[in-house]
Amino acid sequence: MAEKGFRISKTPVWKKLKAHAEEMKRPEYHLKQLIQEDGRMEGFSLKHVDFFYDFSRQRVTRKTMDLLFELAKVAKVHRKYRDKVDGCKVNVTENRAALHTAARSFSGQSICVDGVNVMDEIDAVRRQMKEFSEKVHDGTVCGSTGKKFRHIVVIGIGGSYLGTEFVANALFAYADKGMELHFLSNVDSHNFETIKTKIDPESTLCIVISKSFTTVETMANAQQMKAYMTSCGLDAVKHFVTVTSKGSPGDKGKESGIETFHMFDFIGGRFSVTSAVGGVPLSLYLGYDRFNQFLEGAREMDIHTKYAPSPENIPLVSALIGIWNNNFLGYQAQAVIPYASPLSKLAPHIQQLNMESNGKSVTINNYEIDQSSGVIIFGEPGTNAQHSFFQLAHQGHPFPIDFIGVITPQYPEGGCRPHGVSNHQELWANLISQATALAVGKDSEEKTRFFQGNRPSSTILLNDLSPVNVGRLLAYYEAQTVYKAFIWDINPFDQFGVELGKTIANDLRREIVARNTNPEHSFGHMDEITRFYLERLFAGRLPL
Amino acid sequence: MAEKGFRISKTPVWKKLKAHAEEMKRPEYHLKQLIQEDGRMEGFSLKHVDFFYDFSRQRVTRKTMDLLFELAKVAKVHRKYRDKVDGCKVNVTENRAALHTAARSFSGQSICVDGVNVMDEIDAVRRQMKEFSEKVHDGTVCGSTGKKFRHIVVIGIGGSYLGTEFVANALFAYADKGMELHFLSNVDSHNFETIKTKIDPESTLCIVISKSFTTVETMANAQQMKAYMTSCGLDAVKHFVTVTSKGSPGDKGKESGIETFHMFDFIGGRFSVTSAVGGVPLSLYLGYDRFNQFLEGAREMDIHTKYAPSPENIPLVSALIGIWNNNFLGYQAQAVIPYASPLSKLAPHIQQLNMESNGKSVTINNYEIDQSSGVIIFGEPGTNAQHSFFQLAHQGHPFPIDFIGVITPQYPEGGCRPHGVSNHQELWANLISQATALAVGKDSEEKTRFFQGNRPSSTILLNDLSPVNVGRLLAYYEAQTVYKAFIWDINPFDQFGVELGKTIANDLRREIVARNTNPEHSFGHMDEITRFYLERLFAGRLPL
Repeated sequence: MAEKGFRISKTPVWKKLKAHAEEMKRPEYHLKQLIQEDGRMEGFSLKHVDFFYDFSRQRVTRKTMDLLFELAKVAKVHRKYRDKVDGCKVNVTENRAALHTAARSFSGQSICVDGVNVMDEIDAVRRQMKEFSEKVHDGTVCGSTGKKFRHIVVIGIGGSYLGTEFVANALFAYADKGMELHFLSNVDSHNFETIKTKIDPESTLCIVISKSFTTVETMANAQQMKAYMTSCGLDAVKHFVTVTSKGSPGDKGKESGIETFHMFDFIGGRFSVTSAVGGVPLSLYLGYDRFNQFLEGAREMDIHTKYAPSPENIPLVSALIGIWNNNFLGYQAQAVIPYASPLSKLAPHIQQLNMESNGKSVTINNYEIDQSSGVIIFGEPGTNAQHSFFQLAHQGHPFPIDFIGVITPQYPEGGCRPHGVSNHQELWANLISQATALAVGKDSEEKTRFFQGNRPSSTILLNDLSPVNVGRLLAYYEAQTVYKAFIWDINPFDQFGVELGKTIANDLRREIVARNTNPEHSFGHMDEITRFYLERLFAGRLPL
Repeated sequence: MAEKGFRISKTPVWKKLKAHAEEMKRPEYHLKQLIQEDGRMEGFSLKHVDFFYDFSRQRVTRKTMDLLFELAKVAKVHRKYRDKVDGCKVNVTENRAALHTAARSFSGQSICVDGVNVMDEIDAVRRQMKEFSEKVHDGTVCGSTGKKFRHIVVIGIGGSYLGTEFVANALFAYADKGMELHFLSNVDSHNFETIKTKIDPESTLCIVISKSFTTVETMANAQQMKAYMTSCGLDAVKHFVTVTSKGSPGDKGKESGIETFHMFDFIGGRFSVTSAVGGVPLSLYLGYDRFNQFLEGAREMDIHTKYAPSPENIPLVSALIGIWNNNFLGYQAQAVIPYASPLSKLAPHIQQLNMESNGKSVTINNYEIDQSSGVIIFGEPGTNAQHSFFQLAHQGHPFPIDFIGVITPQYPEGGCRPHGVSNHQELWANLISQATALAVGKDSEEKTRFFQGNRPSSTILLNDLSPVNVGRLLAYYEAQTVYKAFIWDINPFDQFGVELGKTIANDLRREIVARNTNPEHSFGHMDEITRFYLERLFAGRLPL
């Protein structure tokens, strides 16, 4: 797949970018100068259908962009991306394809993995989700006592719920099926107890989501929820469905509840929102048609991502700018600040998507990478973020920001105009002013009122927060993440970094079981620190 | 107050710490070695009543700690802290005291600012909150149509709601007053529309929280909410109370609703949870007695913070370790990972508390600081975080972590033991294993399975999540934040960094008002980028 011996940081263009980054420190390249150039907005923004990407306030010049496009070429990102969407096994460490894009393909074209057209199965699951959600909505499928389902409890962790949570929040205004959605992710019993206070068991449908059906947290929660439903006098099996791999322990018998929807090894958790992982809960919550519109938006961004040449390719340009900020300008974090409350769960989703995909230390050819890869992603909606951590953004440690603006809100505006502007206009005044303030800064004799400026940001604009546009936004971030990995030559689809903690937890679980079984079981053979914690857990309190 | 000419980074001990940090890079100081030392746990942990702080897995030795204590001494932190709690005007740029600690003082001792004992007013507000919450709970104070209040809408942004949100979530299990709590913070109309779908206006009490009563977002939301209540046929005034400064526009007449609770200029927003800002909503939500227990916990940590000598002072030790990690080991971010779902809003609160307080670039004597101050704070509860961004924590860009464990959960455990362990035990197996895995790492021939280790963390243990312990936790983080600032010699109580954005937003608001009033008003005089955004806002969509 990748060239043996290839290291992006050893290429001439990487060195040219390093030198150029030094040059960019000069005062004439301060953002307050750059943004005044004629045609800056026109030259440093891109639009594809309803998706607008403005990078005029990034610390880049024409030369920067040309070098970055050369970097993309050297990294052969277009070929890698096409290999990916065509079903090649780009996830080399796990010998798997990475086909989240197939989950929203409607072209009718085959996509083959190991000689099998995966579209047949994908289409079948789509039809199954459509039929199932319709039956739930019309009451044909209902609880064991005949009550219509009104509460959906998603039992899944990480990629099995973060994307769904993002989309469900983003499209709350479209959720007209009378359903409430709950997320039982954490193994923490508080999570379960809180949900118990919010649901009506008779009208509750649980969706257990786990590819292997062995995820510890998910299995523990499913079991706890099943026991609870039974204790309420219900036939628990009739309140469960599963989303899992074909042939997993959740794909048969009582474990599968009333229905099983398949997920596939060629779609990783953090990329699975457009598969049955997101599809089952979202089609119940929003209706299948709206879920389908969401898929269509994602699909459209996928096509753009595959075919647009580098200088017009929005996810690629933003990936290159991310790498520029990280590896050449030295920013080690990135904030995602949507000026739209419905996108309040975007940052946690992108946090997982990016940090799990690109938080790697080894290239696809097993070289230790000698530059940093993934950065820390965090964020809250604006203007909330302004009243929380923007002090640091303006006068402390700088970090690049993705601002996101939405031109038309989901609800018609009321007549209230407290300062002569509507609340939506107020929101926009802030969206515009923050990016400007960060870029331009302000001189002041008073040191406490001095703003260095030169703090970069991009702004994404959407016409509205329709299902289609939320699909575009999701696919944009997915593609950006993948393009970054392809430039660094790392595998964004595995996650071996989570294994060590699991292994140690397994050992500890055995110790806990031993003590549960035999109160005399000693932790004396464990190291001092571990022993202390285990003893506290069993003692039920700190030492006096 | 502070010595003129003093710069912490120019002190001999700072230089010694720099040299020592180089030394600590040596393999014999890898955490996998350090934690094996005899007595490591005993020597590198502290306990105060029910609060346990374990820093055995930080990259520190006895020598590191001794140097750090010398640093604290040179920075005169104890004197600065005592000056603060005694009412000196430590917020020099705004000529104000910083007395959040007075909000939970029960000693009966006077604390004077400008010759006035502030405890009189603080006590009066406490009594007022107690009486008011009792009257609401027994129905003496009710809505304009006679319905008992069941929904509380907190209208406030930043420090006016983040702390309350953290505590309310932490103590959800104690919220037995039949109240639902909602937060209307963002000026985004989606925030308002979502809350509208969740409340019953007749039984809704709105608490408008703003020190100046001019905060743009809060005023816009209060006005919108008032218009909505009126449109429901209610006497809106009877559904509002205010928390604001004496003499502010919200402290008189119709604006003040049925009652006003005072807040004071000597308690900044992000430090205001224990004042009326948190007190009014929390005493309604939890009952005054529980709010008072929460205050008592905070108080007890305050006393420890003031009197404990450096080596035993938990907030100071953790502040020193934070500075060690940031300025000497070079970590530019910090995660807060509670293994307790009720603490899900702790990280956003600490994010504001730390980043707004310490995201500064100038010392108290107006020197530009030449080392970094505040870092990026982020976090999610474990085990959720493990399934999201811990890949990066283990194999990517390292960052120190505060783990938080709770020995006894708020709910009694069910009998479910899927793998022979209860869910709470499973949670603990993960809590222990993550800190170990990060510290120790793992050698492997296979590069993808190699873990570098040497990744530092602290662990805070609490016996339970009672109101008292949540108070301790809050006060711990507040004190840690202040101690860091006192070591850096910066002012943690101002926030001039948010001013520039506000100024530019004011200019833009004027432009928007002009166009609202006169559709012919041109944005031609604005810069190209600003013009583009304003035109899009009014056009209602992107260019075709």
